[in-house]
Amino acid sequence: MTPYFEHHVFFCLNRRDPGDRPSCANCGSEKMQEYAKKRVKQAGLAGPGKVRINKAGCLDRCEEGPVIVIYPQGTWYTYVDETDIDEIVESHLAGGKIVERLLIDKPDTKPAG
Amino acid sequence: MTPYFEHHVFFCLNRRDPGDRPSCANCGSEKMQEYAKKRVKQAGLAGPGKVRINKAGCLDRCEEGPVIVIYPQGTWYTYVDETDIDEIVESHLAGGKIVERLLIDKPDTKPAG
Repeated sequence: MTPYFEHHVFFCLNRRDPGDRPSCANCGSEKMQEYAKKRVKQAGLAGPGKVRINKAGCLDRCEEGPVIVIYPQGTWYTYVDETDIDEIVESHLAGGKIVERLLIDKPDTKPAG
Repeated sequence: MTPYFEHHVFFCLNRRDPGDRPSCANCGSEKMQEYAKKRVKQAGLAGPGKVRINKAGCLDRCEEGPVIVIYPQGTWYTYVDETDIDEIVESHLAGGKIVERLLIDKPDTKPAG
């Protein structure tokens, strides 16, 4: 069955107290989620069959954050600023090309054998 | 690549004002998300490589709610009460078997030809 959203993007917006595990909200994730949503709308990518930029609670990868996950592909990214979000929108969401430099789970690059 | 979570379950917890679109939080989604999280932990299914019960913002299928989506499969369910959550946990998350009666997107059951 065709997925309801081609790319369903979840931003962790979890906020934690100082001294707890690291917190995506303390790295500006709320602002970046709003920015991504705006960029996707501007690019005409938003809606069923296309892209959904979603708020989410803790994705439980706090030490690797701030994190997003894009389903159904299951691609996990980290990011720092608008430049990174722009690249995810333009390369991954519009162009279908993974942004390797922002991947949390790097592909195994060791030579075979 | 093996998915980080075998079943990543997102509960819409969005709350809306009266007169707006229907709201999953007004159908008890917060309580049901907590219940699902507890049941998954009790069943020993929680954690990387297994199941994550996640909070989410609006999943934009408000009129079909309350809704959850399970990735990477992309299975969308609605539910009413603990009995439905139990069935999703036991059948889908523990047993890998879709709960057809709770699907939002019903498979096409018309005979071929």
